Amino acid sequence: MDHLQQEFSVRFSYPIFFTSDLFATTNSLFADFFNKSAGAVRRKLLFIVDSGVVEAHPQLLDSIRTYVAQHVAALDLIDDVLVLPGGEIAKNSPDAVETIVDAIDRYGVDRHSFVVGIGGGSILDMVGYAAAISHRGIRHVRIPTTVLSQNDSGVGVKNGVNYRGKKNFLGTFVPPVAVFNDSTFLTTLDDRDWRAGTAEAIKVALIKDRAFFDWLDTNATALAQRDLPAMQYLIHRCADLHLKHIAGGDPFEMGSSRPLDFGHWSAHKLEQLTDFELRHGEAVAIGIALDTLYSQQLGWLSEADADRVLNLMRTLGFSLYQPMLDANDSADVLKGLAEFREHLGGQLTIMLLTGLGTGVEVHEMDDSRIRQAIAQLKRTESQPA
Amino acid sequence: MDHLQQEFSVRFSYPIFFTSDLFATTNSLFADFFNKSAGAVRRKLLFIVDSGVVEAHPQLLDSIRTYVAQHVAALDLIDDVLVLPGGEIAKNSPDAVETIVDAIDRYGVDRHSFVVGIGGGSILDMVGYAAAISHRGIRHVRIPTTVLSQNDSGVGVKNGVNYRGKKNFLGTFVPPVAVFNDSTFLTTLDDRDWRAGTAEAIKVALIKDRAFFDWLDTNATALAQRDLPAMQYLIHRCADLHLKHIAGGDPFEMGSSRPLDFGHWSAHKLEQLTDFELRHGEAVAIGIALDTLYSQQLGWLSEADADRVLNLMRTLGFSLYQPMLDANDSADVLKGLAEFREHLGGQLTIMLLTGLGTGVEVHEMDDSRIRQAIAQLKRTESQPA
Ligand SMILES: NC(=O)c1ccc[n+]([C@@H]2O[C@H](COP(=O)([O-])OP(=O)(O)OC[C@H]3O[C@@H](n4cnc5c(N)ncnc54)[C@H](O)[C@@H]3O)[C@@H](O)[C@H]2O)c1
Ligand SMILES: NC(=O)c1ccc[n+]([C@@H]2O[C@H](COP(=O)([O-])OP(=O)(O)OC[C@H]3O[C@@H](n4cnc5c(N)ncnc54)[C@H](O)[C@@H]3O)[C@@H](O)[C@H]2O)c1
Ligand SMILES: [Zn+2]
Ligand SMILES: [Zn+2]
Repeated sequence: MDHLQQEFSVRFSYPIFFTSDLFATTNSLFADFFNKSAGAVRRKLLFIVDSGVVEAHPQLLDSIRTYVAQHVAALDLIDDVLVLPGGEIAKNSPDAVETIVDAIDRYGVDRHSFVVGIGGGSILDMVGYAAAISHRGIRHVRIPTTVLSQNDSGVGVKNGVNYRGKKNFLGTFVPPVAVFNDSTFLTTLDDRDWRAGTAEAIKVALIKDRAFFDWLDTNATALAQRDLPAMQYLIHRCADLHLKHIAGGDPFEMGSSRPLDFGHWSAHKLEQLTDFELRHGEAVAIGIALDTLYSQQLGWLSEADADRVLNLMRTLGFSLYQPMLDANDSADVLKGLAEFREHLGGQLTIMLLTGLGTGVEVHEMDDSRIRQAIAQLKRTESQPA
Repeated sequence: MDHLQQEFSVRFSYPIFFTSDLFATTNSLFADFFNKSAGAVRRKLLFIVDSGVVEAHPQLLDSIRTYVAQHVAALDLIDDVLVLPGGEIAKNSPDAVETIVDAIDRYGVDRHSFVVGIGGGSILDMVGYAAAISHRGIRHVRIPTTVLSQNDSGVGVKNGVNYRGKKNFLGTFVPPVAVFNDSTFLTTLDDRDWRAGTAEAIKVALIKDRAFFDWLDTNATALAQRDLPAMQYLIHRCADLHLKHIAGGDPFEMGSSRPLDFGHWSAHKLEQLTDFELRHGEAVAIGIALDTLYSQQLGWLSEADADRVLNLMRTLGFSLYQPMLDANDSADVLKGLAEFREHLGGQLTIMLLTGLGTGVEVHEMDDSRIRQAIAQLKRTESQPA
């Protein structure tokens, strides 16, 4: 048979910096990155900032202007810094992407320039997508401002927006050229967002890293009391585990390798059933609790270990029961399992635990066991602690 | 400085098949490809077909249905085969992408399914883009039906659509999972499209492959007389050269490496100046003529060699002069040089010839020499051959 075979590899490489006060004039980190890449070619910087971040940090836009003028003289800051509504709305409205593409066009932002997103995972997912589709990919830089985006979404390779309310229906796999995790932003998060992002750390610790789980257990009270150095450690370690998972696996998910989604089949459904009243991380905490109890029922995890998992999350302040778990005699949440199977193309793969720090994949789950786990969560959560 | 460094490579691999009568029930090529990849997972096939191809091959849709039903039983053909207007309009109207994304949503085409595009480079660029952004990338298969798409655009890694009339403003780098070059489609091309695609073969021969140039020269009359085996050879060799250039260079153009664009700086401008009355390949032929004469003026190419290049294109039936070359005392076409520089981010890089089969990059071009080359083209083209 007459054919040619095309074969090539593309190498991707990007740094994830950890810092504080990124735009303080005494902090040269951001400037160093850009000045290094300056050359004969004139590069532009287009900033897009989460409105929630601007509200909490009213001096931010001025700091950026001052900083770039003083330290990044080799690049042209586009004066029109775009401030767009933060949160899931950023991904729900086609207008946000359109606004960025329009700015890229009007200001002549080309493939030698940079799009810089500052904000939570929602804004960053949307900005990354707009940059990825413009001119077949403009370099984008992420400055994540939530726990979740600093330890998970912001360091990875996915971007996307919702379409007709369907999560991440449109998107691409395109890594950023750099990520700047600035701990100063975390101080203004409300308690729910501070807490929610820690669920992803518990998730990855439980399936990959016993020592990290022990650390989380030891530091749960400090984290609950908003100890910043503890949170910085959590983010660094969690980001590292996510990065290694991506690099070691199938970064663009072209084969059948699975993303890190322990506890996520029910979490996705609960987010939807509660009309996104539950934060992603809050739903993940419940999903982790459910699949932990399920693992215990199978005899794979001791009761003591399962209790440690649940108590850790309670100490952090998570509620591990949500009435929607019972809706329609749990038929609604079980639909999440069917949808997960469908999403995977017909072959279900679910991560369960055989120990703290050890995940294992299974290809079916039993409805009545899931109902038992739900009942147990309902019982224990409605008792006074 | 505290940072993590992410590093990974992603491997891409896809076959380019050469065949005829792809959907004849006796041809198992297409079926073999899909049956090989069938598994536990149920996969769907969404076809999008160029209306110009359907007009020229009225039995095509029936053949596809019969073929898939008989030979590709492991996959579900989505009944609603989308027939969309071919030609540049496919890339100009946002509706076309929207129609495909909508079908992907309504028919539950997931990341285990395939989107199959049949048509010229325009439809394929648009279909590839719609597939690339849906669910962060649905596998797409290309069945190019023009000379240009079989030897160049269809075998590469770029896709895209126009935005506000700007060529390829939106797009991504995403390779297909397979390309099927079916020579039967070529028989129904009109003469202009048959010819236009050969300009890309001349381009790549001139900068990379002297033996291929000699072959083109020897076979020019046969090609002009629509000899199909000669065209099949041209396409195979040209596709191979394009594939090697992509694999050997910087496939996603992340650095400064250049695509194969000899003769293209003026071609892009001429297409625009003629409101796309000129086909891309027709404009490229003129662009090649111009930069060949320019190379001769520099003393890099002998007059005899330059004559061979121009005569080859004349034998193929190309006109090598277009009045827009003179518009505004050539200021308009020279603007193309400035735009090319801007597109490259400020640093101009142009390919010229130091021999037949040997390209070399330069970083400036002289306006008066360009005007001389234009004058020469005007003189020779207005004389009877
Ligand atoms: N790309 C990925 O791999 C990936 C992975 C997981 C989750 N996600 C996505 O991330 C999104 C959730 O992101 P998130 O949890 O970061 O929340 P978010 O981006 O939705 O932000 C939540 C709220 O916090 C505000 N905010 C952000 N930073 C702040 C700060 N420093 N101070 C005060 N307020 C601030 C925002 O304005 C918003 O109102 C979801 O859309 C989810 O799908 C993506
Ligand atoms: N992606 C890339 O790397 C790349 C490279 C070069 C060019 N391109 C793009 O390719 C496009 C041009 O593609 P093209 O030259 O193939 O033309 P085209 O796709 O615009 O098609 C030209 C006409 O031919 C018709 N047609 C197609 N196949 C036919 C057949 N077999 N019989 C009869 N009619 C047929 C179409 O309906 C259309 O009317 C441009 O948009 C250009 O930008 C892309
Ligand atoms: Zn998650
Ligand atoms: Zn071309």
